Amino acid sequence: MELKPTKPLSGFIELLPAQQRFVDTCAARMLNVLRACGFSYLDLPAIERAEVLTDKDNWDEIETQMYLFQKGDTKMGLRYDGTVGLSRYVAGHLNDLTFPFRASQYSKRYRGERKQRGRFREFYQMDMDIMDINTLSTNYDAEIISVIQRTLNSVSEFIGDNYVLVGSRPFWDALFDYLELTEEQKKEVFVLIDKRDKISDQEFAEWLSDILKNEKKENEIKSVFIDGYSKFLNKSDNLDGAISELTDFMKTLDVFGVKNAKIDLSITRGLAYYTGLVFEFKLASYPELGTAAGGGRYANLVEKFSKTKIIGVGAAIGFSRIFVALMEMGKIDLSRFEQPVVAAVLPMGNLSVPFAMSVVNTLRDKNITAVAYLNADKKFKNQIEYANKINAKYSVIIGETEVENQLVTIKDMGAGTQQTISLNDAIKIME
Amino acid sequence: MELKPTKPLSGFIELLPAQQRFVDTCAARMLNVLRACGFSYLDLPAIERAEVLTDKDNWDEIETQMYLFQKGDTKMGLRYDGTVGLSRYVAGHLNDLTFPFRASQYSKRYRGERKQRGRFREFYQMDMDIMDINTLSTNYDAEIISVIQRTLNSVSEFIGDNYVLVGSRPFWDALFDYLELTEEQKKEVFVLIDKRDKISDQEFAEWLSDILKNEKKENEIKSVFIDGYSKFLNKSDNLDGAISELTDFMKTLDVFGVKNAKIDLSITRGLAYYTGLVFEFKLASYPELGTAAGGGRYANLVEKFSKTKIIGVGAAIGFSRIFVALMEMGKIDLSRFEQPVVAAVLPMGNLSVPFAMSVVNTLRDKNITAVAYLNADKKFKNQIEYANKINAKYSVIIGETEVENQLVTIKDMGAGTQQTISLNDAIKIME
Repeated sequence: MELKPTKPLSGFIELLPAQQRFVDTCAARMLNVLRACGFSYLDLPAIERAEVLTDKDNWDEIETQMYLFQKGDTKMGLRYDGTVGLSRYVAGHLNDLTFPFRASQYSKRYRGERKQRGRFREFYQMDMDIMDINTLSTNYDAEIISVIQRTLNSVSEFIGDNYVLVGSRPFWDALFDYLELTEEQKKEVFVLIDKRDKISDQEFAEWLSDILKNEKKENEIKSVFIDGYSKFLNKSDNLDGAISELTDFMKTLDVFGVKNAKIDLSITRGLAYYTGLVFEFKLASYPELGTAAGGGRYANLVEKFSKTKIIGVGAAIGFSRIFVALMEMGKIDLSRFEQPVVAAVLPMGNLSVPFAMSVVNTLRDKNITAVAYLNADKKFKNQIEYANKINAKYSVIIGETEVENQLVTIKDMGAGTQQTISLNDAIKIME
Repeated sequence: MELKPTKPLSGFIELLPAQQRFVDTCAARMLNVLRACGFSYLDLPAIERAEVLTDKDNWDEIETQMYLFQKGDTKMGLRYDGTVGLSRYVAGHLNDLTFPFRASQYSKRYRGERKQRGRFREFYQMDMDIMDINTLSTNYDAEIISVIQRTLNSVSEFIGDNYVLVGSRPFWDALFDYLELTEEQKKEVFVLIDKRDKISDQEFAEWLSDILKNEKKENEIKSVFIDGYSKFLNKSDNLDGAISELTDFMKTLDVFGVKNAKIDLSITRGLAYYTGLVFEFKLASYPELGTAAGGGRYANLVEKFSKTKIIGVGAAIGFSRIFVALMEMGKIDLSRFEQPVVAAVLPMGNLSVPFAMSVVNTLRDKNITAVAYLNADKKFKNQIEYANKINAKYSVIIGETEVENQLVTIKDMGAGTQQTISLNDAIKIME
């Protein structure tokens, strides 16, 4: 018989138990921060109708990367982010939710892109979004950024320090209008800017020239990456509006206690739905990981689902791309995340099993992590080996004599010492 | 513009925040039990190669219910249970794991079946499995059952008492051999027995007659549901072996502290891969929920992935089918699961935002759940309404006077009393 493959599909994450405990530890801490910041956790379906996921006026690359399929007459697909499903959810529950509505998510997303280092086809993102009806103060944009920083700081022992770069979609919109680009050129230049850190300056210049075929305009755009917005002050009302929104926002970030924030207009975010300020978090010690978290304001996403005007600001932390990558880079001491077993209970033969199981049950009732070795006919040597391998702090040995006297022999696996005592006394040692 | 649908796909679960907090509370308690019982949590890919999920010699209905699709040249599908992926994982990590390997899972599964009450297309199951190389004592079957009972008991305030019914695949195999059924007849009768509680006695009898066309054999099989195994003692060695394995096992269950267990040979489980004892948990107060958890021993599942002989015993708790159904039945008081916000911080105008945010940050640093209302230009009435809606225990009001004096006005939302004091004194009240 030919054996089936044991490897997961390429691009799919599969962790060993200690690796899993590491990512679970990080997720628990981060979700705890989000809870304390007043976000309601939501667990939305991973599958959405195809029409919810796709969009005629979408200029995202993501569309080509989606997992789309059909069951019966229904076209559907796996979500590629958390925001589209959340927008549908909020539109469907306008009367059930309190606004501004604060939602957190931590769930698997799917993108069938070509496998690159640190890019997965199935991966976790952790999202936080705030949505409100009709208006939403930019104070909330600042709060989202301060909450991400708080969340990342809760795992700083693993990821080090972070900083945040803030960009502005309205700045580019105003600049493109000022430069009189066509709608088609606008979209293409946005896509190109988002790719900028993945290609060389020369490639960027050539590609830009292909799109614009106008040296003056090309130079104006290229100047932004060198001199920022300064030369575009007093050129148009829209440019001035976008620039002052951005500079005011940096002061608000300071008020909100955000450290290490700066303007970077090259930040535009890859997703089409952003309409306002956008931002990306980077890890100071791990530039090679790219963007650790990113997000921005989206004013029009919910209008595809509801006539009520809903404005949102949100962000996603690239959970898997950070934590799985750090393990792959060997940056995490996984010995800290071995199984935390307190007692390995070892019955010496099947006649010892009943007493051993009553011991296990008593320990579990006392919330002491206890595992019995229940292939009880195996030799003592095998049983102690097992206790060692699962990193048990203590072995609780139950032989004939122990059963007879209703005592246990407790062995400290670190010190190597052992004593035969009552179960109550053993519990006092292990607690 | 035509609006997109806001409802999730039929059969997909979507919960409101309080409902989500209820299921998360239950999951956290149950996973905590599994951790304390020494199970390592695994989070495996939701997508597997089609060849991993499907099987030529599979007689499960499940095959027709799978979500299968193709990306490039690769045929793949969404998992329908946790055991098949775990078998692949264990086979692929024989040298990385300690045996007997104890794994827990809590993840989404997918079955595209027709929607019925309490049946979902995307749903959570919580699994626990123990696998070992070459042999695995039936003590582990008993341990799995005792661990499920402990897990269900951790949420007994919501689900009430449980009991467990134990069946035996070997008994039926031996009976079918004794009755000289063909291989085809064996499969069909197994499928029929698994459906028995969904159809009438008459339908069962007619269907059985269609398969066997032999009145004597039909009566022998029907007698099992009335008289159990008693009339099949001393008929064949295999029948005697299966019966004594089962009766011995009930004694072991007692030793392991399992309450309310009894033999029920009509329990066979729908999945083809079980080869030994099988069992189902029911909820005493909710017979309409059917099976709350089920599982059994599988001796051959891993052989499709590895030449090393691996034997497993495992079970899945029908997490969504229990907890989502209980909410649908109105059995859960969801007011207990509203958002646990301690402080709603309310800045009276944008000039109060900086001080308000420093208050929020201080509260969050002290692990006090704090939410600011940041549309600061809204009227006091709107802001207090918001504090009420999010069930804040206290409102912390920051007006011009408070900013000037660096004080806060704290309002007890239950008592309606308020006082203007220092932030430190306010923290002492809220902690």
